[in-house]
Amino acid sequence: MLQPPPARPSMREDEVDTPALLIDLDAFEFNLDHMVELLAPTQAKLRAHAKTHKSPVIAKLQMMRGAVGQCVQKVAEAEALAWGGIPDILVSNEVVGASKLARLAALARIAKVAVCADDEAQVAAIETAASDAGVRLPVLVEIDVGAGRCGVAPGPDAVELAKRIAASKHLIFGGLQAYHGSAQHKRTVAERRTLIGNAVDASRRTVEQLRQQGLDCAIVGGAGTGTFQIESTSGVYNEIQAGSYVFMDADYARNLDEAGAPIGTFRHSLFVLATVMSVPNKNIAVVDAGHKAVAVDSGMPTIWQRPEIRYVGASDEHGKMEVGSETAAPKLGEKLRLVPGHCDPTVDRYDWYVGVRNGRVECLWPIAARGGMH
Amino acid sequence: MLQPPPARPSMREDEVDTPALLIDLDAFEFNLDHMVELLAPTQAKLRAHAKTHKSPVIAKLQMMRGAVGQCVQKVAEAEALAWGGIPDILVSNEVVGASKLARLAALARIAKVAVCADDEAQVAAIETAASDAGVRLPVLVEIDVGAGRCGVAPGPDAVELAKRIAASKHLIFGGLQAYHGSAQHKRTVAERRTLIGNAVDASRRTVEQLRQQGLDCAIVGGAGTGTFQIESTSGVYNEIQAGSYVFMDADYARNLDEAGAPIGTFRHSLFVLATVMSVPNKNIAVVDAGHKAVAVDSGMPTIWQRPEIRYVGASDEHGKMEVGSETAAPKLGEKLRLVPGHCDPTVDRYDWYVGVRNGRVECLWPIAARGGMH
Repeated sequence: MLQPPPARPSMREDEVDTPALLIDLDAFEFNLDHMVELLAPTQAKLRAHAKTHKSPVIAKLQMMRGAVGQCVQKVAEAEALAWGGIPDILVSNEVVGASKLARLAALARIAKVAVCADDEAQVAAIETAASDAGVRLPVLVEIDVGAGRCGVAPGPDAVELAKRIAASKHLIFGGLQAYHGSAQHKRTVAERRTLIGNAVDASRRTVEQLRQQGLDCAIVGGAGTGTFQIESTSGVYNEIQAGSYVFMDADYARNLDEAGAPIGTFRHSLFVLATVMSVPNKNIAVVDAGHKAVAVDSGMPTIWQRPEIRYVGASDEHGKMEVGSETAAPKLGEKLRLVPGHCDPTVDRYDWYVGVRNGRVECLWPIAARGGMH
Repeated sequence: MLQPPPARPSMREDEVDTPALLIDLDAFEFNLDHMVELLAPTQAKLRAHAKTHKSPVIAKLQMMRGAVGQCVQKVAEAEALAWGGIPDILVSNEVVGASKLARLAALARIAKVAVCADDEAQVAAIETAASDAGVRLPVLVEIDVGAGRCGVAPGPDAVELAKRIAASKHLIFGGLQAYHGSAQHKRTVAERRTLIGNAVDASRRTVEQLRQQGLDCAIVGGAGTGTFQIESTSGVYNEIQAGSYVFMDADYARNLDEAGAPIGTFRHSLFVLATVMSVPNKNIAVVDAGHKAVAVDSGMPTIWQRPEIRYVGASDEHGKMEVGSETAAPKLGEKLRLVPGHCDPTVDRYDWYVGVRNGRVECLWPIAARGGMH
């Protein structure tokens, strides 16, 4: 059920079988370095989020170029990274259920593994798993800094839960998880500043209340590709959990800077290569990449450097495109690069990355945590 | 990169690891039989669409219960079925590119394999592949019966292409592919009747024009779960390509009957089992199933038999639910069945089906064509 790779090294890009998930290696490497450069003057380090790339190979490249660790959302992702040699992993999420917690605790023998909690019952369950495995696990308190999803309220509720963790024999209080997901995609700087300003205030207050109880936060973590410049200069956050910056996607590219222009901080490095499989008339072309090949939850893909072609609708295995002018019309069999609307779930549809540079395939990397939902 | 199965036979359903893709076997078997019963009085046979289930096991059960063959959209799906013993497969789609066509032609040695075309260049490419492989391939002409996606115009254009096929040494003219995708989800009977009425007229006219040229259509195929009762009684279509009927999804369940009530012809048999991973307050609960676990392109999932719980938003690994009343609130760790909004792309996210009956796991089936985009 592992799909065969759609390419082999040294092939030309136009020989790659489609749909395929391409990484433009020059743009990708630029992104890796640029994030670390942007964080260098701040007190925040990069703990890159692997839920974007799901690959220990990319995690390793991030670590080699300055990341201090990795985030994941699922135990299966933590396993893929730990088994691939990554030494420092934070599950930036709650893990519920004895069998998942047992797997997590087992990993603590080969890597530093931390996890989040937002409920006393969860602290007890993690303590049991750590005790059974004979390990000590760092546990972060997740606080809701405005996204309205998981997390306890900042302040006293968070302090209460942190005390529980610190009082548990096989647990270590690891700090705060303070991520504001919905702020990442607010289009204007002003909106993002307001929301993250509130998140910073809530985090700062909670950190201070914890300190008054003798509880220091080794990690105050959060932020994503849309807002990390705010958290990283806050003086409160010390770890940045951006993930999408390695690839960018059409949705993040719609965020605006101070002047109202697209931000352009990072480059598009992830593409779905697709083939034109039908040209029923001069205004319509159909590619072989639909719902199964590209996530449309955050909008349709765009066509790379072909502004006159618009991807207007996806069905399971087809993408329908409208063509603005006859000269722009793609030919039957032509291959086009799509920029996915949302990179993380698009990556999860593939077993292989095809790394390209100067029009040639340079490498194949397995997407080891593809489908890793457990 | 194959994920381990989330269950083992004889487990209780509430012991299954989540997210997991469940099949309610009683409802599933009802659906298999019911479709064949509904088609029995008509002249149309069932060639079930495997793009829904992606599994030679389910294909085999459909064949044992009366289907005459299977449809697929991709060569990788045809391979999964042929390698799993299915003898009669129609790729109800265009296949573009020499390497894909070579794989398709190779399959013709172990199964009856047909494919569609909507362009003369494609007919030439299929002829080359069939000739190189030393096989003869049936090729259907895809006509656009109103969906505005792939396909040549009905009538003379279709006849012209059919003649090309018939004149090709290694090809056999196989009939017409006449599927109207967008009609499937029109909510009222009247809308579906109008659109499919036009599709039937276009198909009938084309069949007659072909006959005048001495070209008989072995297959006139199309229809889906939303409209098959119209095509199957048309006297023109002789093969029905419904797929979703085996599982149903929340979107198809919104189709209405003559009286304006939900149709209810088939039962929901496919569910995503999810665990409540956070209960931050009495109005909100979060499950461990987001974009990676369930497709939301046709709407959010519903919660099975829990009408007071509403799934309001998906992020990559989280599903946020609003709870209508305190008594309806799910508990931390509780497992809930979600009815996916769209079954086909949801299935593609999983490696395993977990078949359940009477609260116990009865079987595990691999989703052999998962990720099969090529």
